This record gives sequence, structure tokens and C-alpha cells, in this order.
Amino acid sequence: MIKIALLGYGTIGSGVAEVLRINKDSITKRAGEEIEIKYVLDLRDFEQDPIQPKIVHQYDIIANDPEIAVVVEAMGGVEPAYTFVKQALLAGKSVATSNKALVAKHGAELLAIAKEKNINFLFEASVGGGIPIIRPLNSSLTADEVEEITGILNGTTNYMLSKMTFEGLEYDDVLKEAQARGYAEANPAADVEGQDACRKIAILTSLICGQQVDFEEIHTEGITRISATDIQYAKAMNRVIKLLAVSKKTKEGYSVLVCPMLLAPGHPLYSVNDVFNAIFVHGNVLGDAMFYGSGAGKLPTASAVAADIVDIVKNRDRNIMTAWSDQRLTLADYKQSKRRFFVRTTDSRDQVQNAFGAVELIQLPERFGEVGVLTGEMTEEEYEKRAAKLNEVLQMIRVV
Amino acid sequence: MIKIALLGYGTIGSGVAEVLRINKDSITKRAGEEIEIKYVLDLRDFEQDPIQPKIVHQYDIIANDPEIAVVVEAMGGVEPAYTFVKQALLAGKSVATSNKALVAKHGAELLAIAKEKNINFLFEASVGGGIPIIRPLNSSLTADEVEEITGILNGTTNYMLSKMTFEGLEYDDVLKEAQARGYAEANPAADVEGQDACRKIAILTSLICGQQVDFEEIHTEGITRISATDIQYAKAMNRVIKLLAVSKKTKEGYSVLVCPMLLAPGHPLYSVNDVFNAIFVHGNVLGDAMFYGSGAGKLPTASAVAADIVDIVKNRDRNIMTAWSDQRLTLADYKQSKRRFFVRTTDSRDQVQNAFGAVELIQLPERFGEVGVLTGEMTEEEYEKRAAKLNEVLQMIRVV
Repeated sequence: MIKIALLGYGTIGSGVAEVLRINKDSITKRAGEEIEIKYVLDLRDFEQDPIQPKIVHQYDIIANDPEIAVVVEAMGGVEPAYTFVKQALLAGKSVATSNKALVAKHGAELLAIAKEKNINFLFEASVGGGIPIIRPLNSSLTADEVEEITGILNGTTNYMLSKMTFEGLEYDDVLKEAQARGYAEANPAADVEGQDACRKIAILTSLICGQQVDFEEIHTEGITRISATDIQYAKAMNRVIKLLAVSKKTKEGYSVLVCPMLLAPGHPLYSVNDVFNAIFVHGNVLGDAMFYGSGAGKLPTASAVAADIVDIVKNRDRNIMTAWSDQRLTLADYKQSKRRFFVRTTDSRDQVQNAFGAVELIQLPERFGEVGVLTGEMTEEEYEKRAAKLNEVLQMIRVV
Repeated sequence: MIKIALLGYGTIGSGVAEVLRINKDSITKRAGEEIEIKYVLDLRDFEQDPIQPKIVHQYDIIANDPEIAVVVEAMGGVEPAYTFVKQALLAGKSVATSNKALVAKHGAELLAIAKEKNINFLFEASVGGGIPIIRPLNSSLTADEVEEITGILNGTTNYMLSKMTFEGLEYDDVLKEAQARGYAEANPAADVEGQDACRKIAILTSLICGQQVDFEEIHTEGITRISATDIQYAKAMNRVIKLLAVSKKTKEGYSVLVCPMLLAPGHPLYSVNDVFNAIFVHGNVLGDAMFYGSGAGKLPTASAVAADIVDIVKNRDRNIMTAWSDQRLTLADYKQSKRRFFVRTTDSRDQVQNAFGAVELIQLPERFGEVGVLTGEMTEEEYEKRAAKLNEVLQMIRVV
């Protein structure tokens, strides 16, 4: 019997309790011993819930109980999660977390403590919800140089963009609907402005390069400026718009970028819709692979956290995650990365040609007075120089 | 420095040597020590290849060398692979293999020996080539009850069916082309008759149920009877035909089946084309997930074998695979599984209705004198009874 403590009894925390209950028998068999929740830390009480006798309001009770071998952090946010998790690891308690903000910010340090203590700090659920991606990168793709990871890493924005695509709705209406269905939060900034996806691609990049990637240094654009009109143009080009998080190994270093992009039907992420997430990986010997599944949601995320708990129990006194060093990775300047660009402008075709040279033009009958432009391949820097020659740029979306 | 021996220097064996060479630095770092190929067992000599000094023709040289800690079996076929692998494990040498015939036939026994000896018998490459699927099932989906696995597990047949779909070609022509390109063997039976996919789904089912699944008991149909006309009908129904390997947990036990099936666009495997493989997994808490990638090919498969070698080196003196018992799993009778059926017949519409009741009819202008029928949902048993009322069934394809 191994005793664990949950920090936080919100969506993920209560989901973990539920998964451990629903699949108790098979989890016990796979872990090799029974897993019992001894404490649940939450500021609230849950009088109607059978969990109530286990609720505590003071972290010290957990920290000071030598019986607790595993701490499951499901509070979210950097503080107080960081303080609690660090304290647990220093006390020799392994930790499983779903908290991407914590891992992106302090992953290197927490992994180093776990390694030194010969215990584990696992965070499968921090990227891709229920999709196994951290463990495959850590244990399966070990014979490869991973040269590219491109992911749809945020379920909220993917749901919104899918809805805009399939129903022709405007951004604001879709956001309201997503909020009403619980897919978007009252303050949706972390999702719609790309910050969530940014932290996740920082974690994945740290994993493959072995160094700390500061998410603040990743150029990040959200979907707030995407309109129903943009979607109409995308359809006319037989493409879809997705919020992508891209990390590519180049000669100049890792080039990392989060932004809405136009995808053609041949792209492996083209048909990943609704709240689903998917992560495309290219290895130098493996070639292309893709991992797809429920990127969020109570039970899928809890499934990944519970699998981490099983792994911790199976690997007591044995560190299994490859740590990344706290040495900062200098990212390649994304302005040097090359791609095509889609531009909407009120300029004349002559002016467009003058700015960009040979282009594809897309004219929507209902958008009189503007034209859609698909440029040739060029760096961001060159794009900016050329676009400055136009009188007005209504929109720019990158093409993958 | 750890010394290994390769059994077989064909496509996979030489691929493993190549991967270990190309990514030597990162592999050494991840494994924690250098991996050196000391011997390569092959009947042939390779005078033009730098591997030649390591070539041996007698397995005993490897078996009797205590320096060899890992044996990589890449010969294929049950014998002599089984004898060699068993001997290696009994001598305390861990084994990595890409051999699905070996694992499907003797997996339970070989896993048990590895467990007893506290070493490892790993076989990631035996299913899905380079796609991580064995390790995710073993280590990631441990908090789930896996209720369904449906896979496109054979690259040769998926290439052939894709080619028939996109180019309207006949089976025989596509087979010749696949043989010319090296995607199909001179004797293509193992692929086109579904035997390869059958062994792979037997392995996956054994993994999730923990018991030995005898592949001989899985109802298996190949693609040899699929014609350009069937593909035309599929297109008229906006569907595609794929060779699927399906394993479902039902109240009556695991229902396992390998056969060509009709898929609608909403199905996650619908757009998996060419030599790619993909494995759809449904877990009771995870929900839907999919793993996609290069299911065959020299380097992708070798990437998975090399990752197994890394795992073996990282886990010396420690067994990491969950064994399945040698107790035979009794499969549910596939004739009790329910689905829709597509039938081509020369019978009249009245006769069709008399046999199947309410159906969808598909009439191709170019197929005068016959009609396509999409039945309602029924068991295989009921389908057979009803189909017997027709005078002539030209074709039957199951619908997923």
C-alpha cells in the first residue's frame, strides 16, 4: 500500500481520485501495490463528497507526514505549486503534476532535485492532456534526433477554430459559446493568446534539446485576430487555420514559434478538429510520427496523471526521466525562418506585385475592394520589408 | 561500453547498425554508455561492407561470449529465431526483436524467462514499425482499461489499397507495382492475406489482456478479393476500404478480427494512406487516442529496435515489460459481433429487401445488372442467414 496526497480538488484533482477509484483493480495490478489517497489539500470543503474526511487545508500536514510517498500537484499556476512541489521533492516524495506553467518555468530545477534524490518528477499530463507524448519522447524516441515537433496543443482554440470553420461563425460568438460549454474560461487569455501552447512547446523543446527553454523568448501570437473572413479565404484556398506550436532544429539552433497557420489537406494535422490535440514529430531515422487524442478534459488528463503515479510506484528509488539542464537555450531568431505568407490587402494587384513579386491571388466575390495574396517563400524579415511597401495590410497569416 | 550482437544483417539488421552509427552521440548519452556491435550473425559475407570483420556464421560464438549483454534478433520467422532468443535469455542476455511471428507465437514464454532472469525481452518494432505503441501500452496507458484497439498494421496492403483508391487500378496491377518498388515481397501472402496484421493484433491484444492470444484463432481475411469495382462503390458511398485489425473488449470477451472494412470520413483511420500505419486506441478514462507513423521501412523499424536497445542498457538488471501469462485467452465468437455489411449482388431489389429488410442501395451506372447494398446493423451470424436468401453474393465487405 502506497499513500499519496493530492494538491487541489478541482477538475484534474477530482478526476485523478475518480480514475484511481474506477480502475482500482487494474491500477493496483500494474503498480504492484495498492494506491491510497490519504490527504487532499484544498482551501474548500466538499461536504457532499466522500473525499471530505481526507480534505486538509494546510500543506504542512502533507509535507510532514513521512507516510506520504507521492504528491500529486493539480492546483495549476506557478505559486504556491512551485514551493509545495520543491518542498515535497526535497523531502524525498516523488511528484506527478499536470501543471505546464510550473514545468515550463521550473522544470530544470525540479528534475535536478528528483534526480539527486533518486525519486521522480513526472509531468505527462502537462502537454497534450491524455496523449502520451512526454514518455514517448523520454523513452521511445531515444534512438532519434528529433528534428521537428509541430503540435495542436490547445483544445480551447482548436475547438473555436473548428467551429468557425464548420459553422462560419465570428470569433466573438464562438468564444461565448465555448465559455458557455466550459471549453473556455471566463478569462480566456491564456488559451486564445497562445500562452498555454507556448508553455507546452517550451516543455517539449526542453525535453528534446536537454536545455531550459524560456517560454518568454518564444514568439507567440494567439487567435484573437482571426475572423470569419479569414476562414472564408482559407476555404477558398482549400486550407484550414490552426493554432500551431512549432519547434524546428535548424543550423542556427531551435526555431520555435506559436501562431495561427494555414494548413493544406496533405498536412498530418489538417483534420485534427474540435477539442482534440495532436503532436507531429519528425525524427531523423524514424521519419514522421503523430500522436493524437484528448488534449484536455477531466478524465483524459487525469488518466495521464494516474499513469505517472503508477510509474512512480513501479520506480521507487529510481529516477526515470531524462533531466534537462538549467542552462538556457538560445533560440534561433524566428525572423530568419522561411515560409509562405497569406496577406489580405486593399492595395491594387500592381502594388501587390510590386511588393511581393510573383504571388497567387485569391479574390472572394463578397470581399469587394480587397484581395488575398499567397506569397512565395521568404524569411519573416524579408516579408516585413516587402509588406511595408503596401499601403494597407488587413491581415497576415503564416502558411505551413 | 556495452557489447551487443545482431542476428541477421538484412534490411532491419543493417538498419540497426546504421541507426547506431548515425546517432551514436545522442544514443550514447541517452543510454548512459557506449553501445558497440561486437558480432553480426549472418549466413552471408559482406565483403564490401565495413561490418565484415564482425560477421560470424555460428550462433554459438555469440551465445558463449559472456561479454555480449544484448542480442538483437532481426532474422524474422519463428525458427531458428526462437531457439536463439531463448538461449540468449536463459544465458542472461537481454533481447530486442522486430519479429512479430516470434512474439505472437512465443511471447508469453520469452517474457517469463526475461522476468525470471531480471533482464528484458523488448519488441517495440514488432508492431507498427517505428511507431511507439508497445511501450505506450506498457507504460503510459496504465491507468486505463483499454476497450478497443483498431489498427492499420500492414504497410504493404495499405499502400496497395491507397493506390487502388487514388488511381483506380486493379489489385493485380497494384501488387506488381508494389513488388517492383520493394513494398511487397515476391511471395506477398503474409501481407495480402492478413497474416502479418493478424500476428500484430494478437500481440497488442495479449498486451492489454495479459494472456496469450493464439493468432490462429483470429478470423483473418486479406485484401486479395478486393477489386477496382469495390473501390468504385466505396467512393460512391464516400468511404474508403482499409485492411483493419480490430480488438474489442466485450461482455463476451475480446472480439478480434482482421479484414478489409469500409470507413467513413469521420473515422480516425480514414486518412491514413500509403505505407503509413496507425493505431487507434480507446481507453475507458483516456477516451480516444491514435498513434501514427512509418509502419515499416528500414530506418523507422531500426529506430524502434535501437530505442529498445537503449532501454535495455538503461535498465540492466531490471525487468520493465509487463509479462502476459501463457494461459490462453478464449476469444469471443466474432460471429456474434454486430456491424453493418456492404454487399454486391445480382439479385433484384425486391429480393434484397426480402433478405435484409430496410437497406441503402448504391447503383453504379457502369455496373449494370448488379446493385450495392448497405445493410442495417446485425451480427455476422444473422448476416450469413440473411445473405443465404440471395441467389448470388458478388462481394461482402464489413463496415466499421
